[in-house]
Amino acid sequence: MTTLVTSGKTKELYTTENDDVLRAHYTDHTTAGDGLRNELIDNKGAVNNQISSLIFGYLNQNGVATHFIEQVSETDQLNKKVEMIPLEVVVRNFAAGHFQKRFGTDYLQTLKQPVVEFFYKDNDLHDPIVTKSDAVGLDLLSAEKLEQLEAAGLKVNQVLTDLFNKMNVTLVDFKLEFGINADGEIILADEISPDSCRLLDKDTNESLDKDVFRKQTGDMMPGYLEILHRLQKAI
Amino acid sequence: MTTLVTSGKTKELYTTENDDVLRAHYTDHTTAGDGLRNELIDNKGAVNNQISSLIFGYLNQNGVATHFIEQVSETDQLNKKVEMIPLEVVVRNFAAGHFQKRFGTDYLQTLKQPVVEFFYKDNDLHDPIVTKSDAVGLDLLSAEKLEQLEAAGLKVNQVLTDLFNKMNVTLVDFKLEFGINADGEIILADEISPDSCRLLDKDTNESLDKDVFRKQTGDMMPGYLEILHRLQKAI
Repeated sequence: MTTLVTSGKTKELYTTENDDVLRAHYTDHTTAGDGLRNELIDNKGAVNNQISSLIFGYLNQNGVATHFIEQVSETDQLNKKVEMIPLEVVVRNFAAGHFQKRFGTDYLQTLKQPVVEFFYKDNDLHDPIVTKSDAVGLDLLSAEKLEQLEAAGLKVNQVLTDLFNKMNVTLVDFKLEFGINADGEIILADEISPDSCRLLDKDTNESLDKDVFRKQTGDMMPGYLEILHRLQKAI
Repeated sequence: MTTLVTSGKTKELYTTENDDVLRAHYTDHTTAGDGLRNELIDNKGAVNNQISSLIFGYLNQNGVATHFIEQVSETDQLNKKVEMIPLEVVVRNFAAGHFQKRFGTDYLQTLKQPVVEFFYKDNDLHDPIVTKSDAVGLDLLSAEKLEQLEAAGLKVNQVLTDLFNKMNVTLVDFKLEFGINADGEIILADEISPDSCRLLDKDTNESLDKDVFRKQTGDMMPGYLEILHRLQKAI
């Protein structure tokens, strides 16, 4: 018997026979605008589960500790159970989205070095940005753990930038979430997919990610499938 | 002959006979709500000039390098010329204002340790918060200089918290601005006054600062004068 543990915006988590393992079911829900838009996009869950499984498997093999165990169906994967840290870790190589708007930069302005930002996951507060100093002052996390998160974000950025470069894709920015496992270690959790990354074809600068849905410029699924196919070739 | 160099929201800067020295003239302008409210409050400039002169003189004597040279009239002081760094450095001992709203905390919630935040001074962008990582990525300032600003903010907090404690006043939070002098050194500039600090009487928790103007709860000048009188006794 499996029980629903929690239902997020796009994924459902179920118990398994093993207390330390959860099954993540990727749904077709697609959200934008702080959750104000929420649509079902056919096949999105299956494609994102496959993409995230490939990427997390690759990270596991490249020195990044993650919650990922294995993909078990088109839409489902097994993950190690962790206690989630209520922070989004955003890594940026070029200006876009919230950062571009906040600082009034050009779209895709080059940054002097990759930027790591933290956002506090709280729907009522609309996920406010939180500096490391804020997070320590609010007793959300220790300074040491925040440094670990920042270092992990930069390591993931390095591994994935190299991977996407091979796929002729620019990794503009992405969002990570981390958890703490039974041994008290910080490991990468949640997902990495075109829902959580900005990915551009290097030849055309075309978005192969959720910006197509956010900006309502067309059908986002061809871009998601393109990412999946290039990943299957590259990994 | 003196020439107006620049006119800010509350101060005017004039040249002097010495190229390395500017005269700051404190006006009665008082602003709130991102500059939407701007009123003249009789005697405010003179009181703030006296308060800021006392505090900066005290900081000069207590190991904090500042731009302050001397008070030359009720409303005017001489400052070393610096190139201003376009960041506001905010130090918080208790939750209030923007921080309280952003994180939905109680008013005056205790922080685990003092928080230092940076805001990018840009009227069109409404002075957005900028993390150290953002600032380096945007090439606003080096990581080393940001660490120096943070350390200077915490040092000022230590000196002023001790001073205000002696005056039976709680230093809730305050805003600093820094400049770079001719030798390339970072020194404290701008002003420190009830316009830029949250200051509470320890017995009554009554605001002795601009929150009285912001929240429109009465005449703010008695609080400003109270701070001036307690400073004159304490220093």
